[in-house]
Amino acid sequence: MSDAGEILSRLAALGLTLPTVAAPVGSYIPAIRVGSTVYTSGQLPFIDGALPATGKVGTGPGLVDPADAAGYARIATLNALAAVASVAGGLENVARVVKVVGFVASDPGFTGQPTVVNGASDLLTAVLGDVGVHARSAVGVAVLPLDSPVEIELVVELV
Amino acid sequence: MSDAGEILSRLAALGLTLPTVAAPVGSYIPAIRVGSTVYTSGQLPFIDGALPATGKVGTGPGLVDPADAAGYARIATLNALAAVASVAGGLENVARVVKVVGFVASDPGFTGQPTVVNGASDLLTAVLGDVGVHARSAVGVAVLPLDSPVEIELVVELV
Amino acid sequence: MSDAGEILSRLAALGLTLPTVAAPVGSYIPAIRVGSTVYTSGQLPFIDGALPATGKVGTGPGLVDPADAAGYARIATLNALAAVASVAGGLENVARVVKVVGFVASDPGFTGQPTVVNGASDLLTAVLGDVGVHARSAVGVAVLPLDSPVEIELVVELV
Repeated sequence: MSDAGEILSRLAALGLTLPTVAAPVGSYIPAIRVGSTVYTSGQLPFIDGALPATGKVGTGPGLVDPADAAGYARIATLNALAAVASVAGGLENVARVVKVVGFVASDPGFTGQPTVVNGASDLLTAVLGDVGVHARSAVGVAVLPLDSPVEIELVVELV
Repeated sequence: MSDAGEILSRLAALGLTLPTVAAPVGSYIPAIRVGSTVYTSGQLPFIDGALPATGKVGTGPGLVDPADAAGYARIATLNALAAVASVAGGLENVARVVKVVGFVASDPGFTGQPTVVNGASDLLTAVLGDVGVHARSAVGVAVLPLDSPVEIELVVELV
Repeated sequence: MSDAGEILSRLAALGLTLPTVAAPVGSYIPAIRVGSTVYTSGQLPFIDGALPATGKVGTGPGLVDPADAAGYARIATLNALAAVASVAGGLENVARVVKVVGFVASDPGFTGQPTVVNGASDLLTAVLGDVGVHARSAVGVAVLPLDSPVEIELVVELV
């Protein structure tokens, strides 16, 4: 469990604020709480409702640069945290981030998914400290909704 | 929680009945209950043991039409509900559908996975009402078992 | 729940021992326990820190043979069990393997993911008996971290 003010300070130090929860692109809700567990929907790196980039991640012409993709994973994770906060009564009620699944739309020759998904993992620990340390799967998929380069989902345990 | 008769009525109004639980295509079981949580295996759109279509979803020759794929997602979800019912003592014991993951075997140029997986989401709310509203991830994968166009898995909370 | 000695005997009969937990290839931990539930990170088939093979699974030149891939799924699962044991105080505290997700880096024409992931499922029941019987999803993805042919994640319930 983290202190609410401390979380706000960490976000501010990163130049971030929790965004409005992104509207689902289908018949579902952004996050759901069951008992003390929160499951988020897969979150895309929307900024004010638009994707900052589209395409597959890799190195070469027409591909999304892996370092940029890590930044998009960070944005998607910020959206996921906003979704968690919306059903948890604030991020200070997060006892532990349990699991992160990071889907990276990947050129078949790109094998650096862990580096991309570190954009998610590093944000979680930067904002939540030890509470943000989690188990994780990173996979390279063929294509993601709306041609997003990344999609991040969280399982979180509340206090 | 829904009423058993109401669920049957909704299924009947949709022209549906819960099928026999599809036999796993490997060394596992269709669903498992742990405490009040049910996890299903990834479900394919089997009808009487056969896939109604195979291939990747997209627009173009040789691809599975996205609208058809949404129908297959609906069938896979009906199979998932049958798997849930088999370990839950009936769908009336479902307190909440928590999470849906929809894998769509996708042509790399196809980015409409949310529309396909709406076939799953819409069935859940049609059959279970508010109890069926869930968090969701939709991803486009390279290929699915037996060349199925879709695969759906559920996490469900029981009363 | 299984007996600790029995588990050791089964591993020995298979010529296996639990390896050292594989070091994460990113900013996360190999497994996390929340209440009585353990979530592992996606595990690769590391042997002493190196992948025994890389590439996509399929039949044809330059592809990883499906039977070999099943063996790699088995190795990844052994790593996952080591990760579980490290947070569970030993595999004898496993009450039930709940869910297995098997990601198979797949040539788009390869549809035998269930056979590959049986390498994971069969090991779990060989080592843990009835406790190892689980729900499962198998999917074919475009590419996996470090070009691994398989990645396995587990959800496990403890006693």
